[in-house]
Amino acid sequence: MKSPVDLASFVRPPAASSSSTRVATMAGKLVGSEILKIAAEIRALAAKGQPVCNLTVGDFDPKQFPIPDSLRAHIVSAYEAHETNYPPSNGMPQLRDAVQRFYQRELGLSYPLESILIASGARPVIYGIYRAVVDPGETVVYPVPSWNNNHYVTMTDAKSVTIQCGPDTRFLPTREVLEKALPGARLVCLNTPLNPTGTAMSRDMVLGVSEAIVRENEARQARGEKPVYLMYDQIYWMLTAKGTEHVSPPQLVPEMARYTIFVDGISKAFAATGVRVGWAVGPTDVIDRMSAILGHVGAWAPRAEQIATAKMIDDPAGCRAYVDTLKGGIVGRLNALHEGFQALKAQGLPVDSLSPEGAIYLTVQLAPFGKTTPAGQTLSSNEDVRRYVLDAAGIGIVPFQAFGYPGETGWFRLSVGAVSMRDIQDALPRLGEALRALR
Amino acid sequence: MKSPVDLASFVRPPAASSSSTRVATMAGKLVGSEILKIAAEIRALAAKGQPVCNLTVGDFDPKQFPIPDSLRAHIVSAYEAHETNYPPSNGMPQLRDAVQRFYQRELGLSYPLESILIASGARPVIYGIYRAVVDPGETVVYPVPSWNNNHYVTMTDAKSVTIQCGPDTRFLPTREVLEKALPGARLVCLNTPLNPTGTAMSRDMVLGVSEAIVRENEARQARGEKPVYLMYDQIYWMLTAKGTEHVSPPQLVPEMARYTIFVDGISKAFAATGVRVGWAVGPTDVIDRMSAILGHVGAWAPRAEQIATAKMIDDPAGCRAYVDTLKGGIVGRLNALHEGFQALKAQGLPVDSLSPEGAIYLTVQLAPFGKTTPAGQTLSSNEDVRRYVLDAAGIGIVPFQAFGYPGETGWFRLSVGAVSMRDIQDALPRLGEALRALR
Repeated sequence: MKSPVDLASFVRPPAASSSSTRVATMAGKLVGSEILKIAAEIRALAAKGQPVCNLTVGDFDPKQFPIPDSLRAHIVSAYEAHETNYPPSNGMPQLRDAVQRFYQRELGLSYPLESILIASGARPVIYGIYRAVVDPGETVVYPVPSWNNNHYVTMTDAKSVTIQCGPDTRFLPTREVLEKALPGARLVCLNTPLNPTGTAMSRDMVLGVSEAIVRENEARQARGEKPVYLMYDQIYWMLTAKGTEHVSPPQLVPEMARYTIFVDGISKAFAATGVRVGWAVGPTDVIDRMSAILGHVGAWAPRAEQIATAKMIDDPAGCRAYVDTLKGGIVGRLNALHEGFQALKAQGLPVDSLSPEGAIYLTVQLAPFGKTTPAGQTLSSNEDVRRYVLDAAGIGIVPFQAFGYPGETGWFRLSVGAVSMRDIQDALPRLGEALRALR
Repeated sequence: MKSPVDLASFVRPPAASSSSTRVATMAGKLVGSEILKIAAEIRALAAKGQPVCNLTVGDFDPKQFPIPDSLRAHIVSAYEAHETNYPPSNGMPQLRDAVQRFYQRELGLSYPLESILIASGARPVIYGIYRAVVDPGETVVYPVPSWNNNHYVTMTDAKSVTIQCGPDTRFLPTREVLEKALPGARLVCLNTPLNPTGTAMSRDMVLGVSEAIVRENEARQARGEKPVYLMYDQIYWMLTAKGTEHVSPPQLVPEMARYTIFVDGISKAFAATGVRVGWAVGPTDVIDRMSAILGHVGAWAPRAEQIATAKMIDDPAGCRAYVDTLKGGIVGRLNALHEGFQALKAQGLPVDSLSPEGAIYLTVQLAPFGKTTPAGQTLSSNEDVRRYVLDAAGIGIVPFQAFGYPGETGWFRLSVGAVSMRDIQDALPRLGEALRALR
């Protein structure tokens, strides 16, 4: 064979070209994940041999949190049974059946099968919801901090109305603030337990929001207007801390099933982010359109993994045992960090944290603004603090700006799925030292 | 636990509502796959116990065509090694490396790593290309018959310019017809070997098309205009019949690497449609935007399958042996059908077929138009013929209208991945009988 044609000189954009002629307008505007950029920086640091407690990515280290043995075994069996051809584009029937039973059993919600759609994780479900209901120029309402809604708004060429939530409501939206934003909205996006805060909407909050949406839609129906939908991302619903209850709108106000589209899957509760199985549950016509969209996009979960997931979630005792263990590990880490931060706070250091309620995240505040590092740098922004904490204490954290929360507020997300208790115990003294070194 | 809330009455669209208020404009316009609808009909027939030779779906029956043993074994190993967390959003590094080597080795094309993006199959790659380069209202040029371009045009709100190809060019586009359509086009979509026809572009055709695109882009560059890109879907490139050579634009005109984005993956050449591993190869800036888009869409291949695919394609001898066997089975079936149709034609029956060149498809003509069935129906459309052939001969086929090819021409796609030689041998006499029964 002759030597390969070297195409490197052709495939890089010519220096003279601007991206406006090279790519589509939306594509040019879209930015990648800020978190992944920070994560890459941390990998580089760790590669140099520096001890790093990586609290950045919303992922799991399988050494800390392996997927259920049953899930792995079922995947292997499915492959051994030659389950390798196309799944139906809306999902394997046995998995749709199993999700139906799962929601009946665990959430007390009885949906028809046509309400259930399988996809390659929760992200495609989110994307499918946006594309199925939002026209270009329409308004999407979401609280901040929250995860990635800005990107989905860009991809649908929609308009954002953000609701800024503060520590007074544990960064969660109340009926009052949501109600004001509802007129003109086509889609409201909520997530609980919330990425990035690790806090969870109370029964009262969910009830209030549900009543506000039903009332808004009754008024719209009377005027012959389009309804507003609710994207209810409950991917973390199984991961709640003791004393925290996960509640969803149709559980409290059944009529909310008309407007609610659930985002869900195995990625978080079964530590299976790389297995790529998620699902949507919602009104049949919206689900049908999401199915058409995601079918053409090809965001399908692999066939063997779908079959295996069906078997896994059809085992209530097995699921509960696994999730209890996972939760124990996660909540243990969250509590260790929370207690560590509270101890530093008690020492007079400029830190705080919110008690964890769920997901794999802890909200902390690091606000040594105006102080000077041993290297002579004055810390004046979240980014300054993030860099200092990474360089001086080897702790990777993500500022709330990455979740659309503006301002140099000192608020950060800590994610615990990829660290051990030991990593945390080692990191906290380093953090105390780094903070005490500030003048 | 109290009994579940029955939500069925809420989640079906109210009778009074129109879809225009329920879903987004694009979502309302999008239609599902015509082929999948026909396939569902056939499953229903088979469930009744009628012998059906299902030549409709572009898929494999794993009993006929299992995935490589090595691929399965590598997937199992990866799961046993706990490879279950997020892959990087542009793909596992070892798979991107392996695709780079694969293209060097097998196609003689040397791309930098930044030119390679992994996704959950070939569909997301196609969708990513459309969204990365096409603005709403811009023009996409594609020949018909072809697969699903109409849907991707709908999803990008683009304009279609279709080039109708006929049996004179084996349904493939020539430089001459393409050249006329190039002015004003933003994206040209080609696929070879072609779904649905099973015919392959010759070296001359590829060279002609490449030269036309380079010339067009030189002129545009001089005028400061946006270039036209070529989506080159070569998902079937390993599946060519004896005597047919697969050729790609950058192999003949290296400068075409500036404008060509390859669609590729393991779905077809390794009979792995349900395993969900595909890739794009192209200009680095376009690939970077596709990565941002597909990252947010979440159309990621599962981590274990990515690792396994890397190992599989890094074994040249193993790959070649597998593909040779697969090709033998596929081409054997295609030839059996082709010879069967030619024999029926020799008997004076109103059928024809094109000699197979690749993919898993055969183009046939069934044109008994104006004839009357034993039940007294006069056949006047492709749909009439499709139904008659299914009901009277138990053979499932797809009319070219499903691939955007207009008119009652009698042209159909036959897909052989899900049938045995025996199925074909049993079906051909049934077809002869059904055709002879027409008056």
